[in-house]
Amino acid sequence: MTNTSKNIVALAGGVGGAKLAYGLAQIVPPEKLTIIVNTGDDFEHLGLHISPDLDTVMYTLAGAANPVTGWGVKDESWNMMAALARYGGPTWFQLGDRDLATHLLRSNWLREGYPYNWVTQELCRRLGVRSAVLPMSEQPVRTIVQAEEEELAFQEYFVEKQCKPAVKSIRFAGAEEAQPSKEVINAIRMADTIVFCPSNPLVSIDPILALPNLRRIIAAAQVPKIGVSPIVKGEALKGPAAKMMTELGMEVSAVGVAKHLKDVLTGFVIDHLDEAHQEAITNMGLRTLVTATIMKNDEARVRLAQEVLEFAGVRNK
Amino acid sequence: MTNTSKNIVALAGGVGGAKLAYGLAQIVPPEKLTIIVNTGDDFEHLGLHISPDLDTVMYTLAGAANPVTGWGVKDESWNMMAALARYGGPTWFQLGDRDLATHLLRSNWLREGYPYNWVTQELCRRLGVRSAVLPMSEQPVRTIVQAEEEELAFQEYFVEKQCKPAVKSIRFAGAEEAQPSKEVINAIRMADTIVFCPSNPLVSIDPILALPNLRRIIAAAQVPKIGVSPIVKGEALKGPAAKMMTELGMEVSAVGVAKHLKDVLTGFVIDHLDEAHQEAITNMGLRTLVTATIMKNDEARVRLAQEVLEFAGVRNK
Repeated sequence: MTNTSKNIVALAGGVGGAKLAYGLAQIVPPEKLTIIVNTGDDFEHLGLHISPDLDTVMYTLAGAANPVTGWGVKDESWNMMAALARYGGPTWFQLGDRDLATHLLRSNWLREGYPYNWVTQELCRRLGVRSAVLPMSEQPVRTIVQAEEEELAFQEYFVEKQCKPAVKSIRFAGAEEAQPSKEVINAIRMADTIVFCPSNPLVSIDPILALPNLRRIIAAAQVPKIGVSPIVKGEALKGPAAKMMTELGMEVSAVGVAKHLKDVLTGFVIDHLDEAHQEAITNMGLRTLVTATIMKNDEARVRLAQEVLEFAGVRNK
Repeated sequence: MTNTSKNIVALAGGVGGAKLAYGLAQIVPPEKLTIIVNTGDDFEHLGLHISPDLDTVMYTLAGAANPVTGWGVKDESWNMMAALARYGGPTWFQLGDRDLATHLLRSNWLREGYPYNWVTQELCRRLGVRSAVLPMSEQPVRTIVQAEEEELAFQEYFVEKQCKPAVKSIRFAGAEEAQPSKEVINAIRMADTIVFCPSNPLVSIDPILALPNLRRIIAAAQVPKIGVSPIVKGEALKGPAAKMMTELGMEVSAVGVAKHLKDVLTGFVIDHLDEAHQEAITNMGLRTLVTATIMKNDEARVRLAQEVLEFAGVRNK
């Protein structure tokens, strides 16, 4: 653990964000770390409330994530899916047998009326996750992708259509009315640093910022707010960020991401491979750190987390 | 297939009943066989609608039943349960990974508003079950066991408490108001024979008869109505029937079962081992058949089904 007694808030989406959150969780005392997670990917499937990004963060922090896919749990089996396929049931969304325990418990608790926040804490606690993992809101927000011909719920776009349709626009249904929970607001108010994990800016970070009150308190926070680029050398490390940015006419680079988020950032971390972009980002008024941002293993996650906190001025070297 | 063109209705609960239903399904053309199944065991668990007896009948007819337990599916795995246990979730009711596909599909369809009957037909059709398997009612009926100290939902008594509490009485919540479905009524009206499968009379057959209109049309049907004793030599072949009958002050024998059901029967089938009881049952006004009723394998199921239909006068020898 680091010697800091500072409060760290991290905003995260899926796999890339979860990796940095894992690094932070290794060096920040659990009571000092809050991870606010995108719930715009949530959807109902077979009567289950499925929270892909929360699960990825939770499983990753618990050391239970599937190391190959990045999502789901390790040592997974797929026998429910095999039986579902025999029934001719929907098989486009993979539900692992072990993973199902999470969906069943969460869905049942939500149906019984427990707050989403409580449900998430309870799942985390039982998995041994000690840092606070918070859904961005108690209210539903749903990422909707406007493709060429049709509107797609995010999981339909992402999983069923494998990100193939060209994206014309993205909206976050319900975001205007959704409120960040008390716990989310308190965490940000108490934060000494806010870290924007290297998640897809368009469908992981944007939904969080789409909540007007959440965006406002993040923008107003007078603390270091550090983004980490999910784009390295013009490519997303994982997922469809680069393709989506291209289709939406954005510059597919660390500069493009920095530009997109600059109103809520004070600093930005880019990879050595993108050193050429440092000046452009500095010129936006952001401090910059150039380092190795690709997290190939647990050590790299911890090292990047340390560097991000040092860059934010939170840690004594 | 038999050369009969007669319509056969079978009433069934769990494992024993499902075995005879399987036998009937091998010799009666599918469009001529309707199996009406107890739903008093149904319960909600983890947000899933679970239908133990329907599943046992359906899996058995599909050739998919677990040959060891009698319930659940063969080649089952238990990884969801292991993950649920890790969460400290409820583990008293075993949900196999493959079995979960059934519960998820059924629960989701019911939640979407599809009739229970449609849902059951659809599951059966997709598993290749061609005979009609009907829940006894669209409306909920719940078997409640009054034990020494407390009232227990049937699955709590049967699974969680392993039938240990002494039974003082049994009631069927909702039965007074529940109506048999149109399909159930039609099947009985068209029936040329009604077979009471060797299921627990108290918690498999009684809930069916607890629907006033269902009992009335069965009682009024002027066709052979043949019971098969689930008690042989004073013991239940499976399950708690003997223990429950003892605790409720009934004679634990084929005679006790015949006495319990005689108002709705015209004939009763007992095992060779109970030949000494034949006279007592005949004296109740029931025709009797003494034969081998223990169904140790598929051949025995088919043979007993044949004998029952011959006894009912449905088949030409």
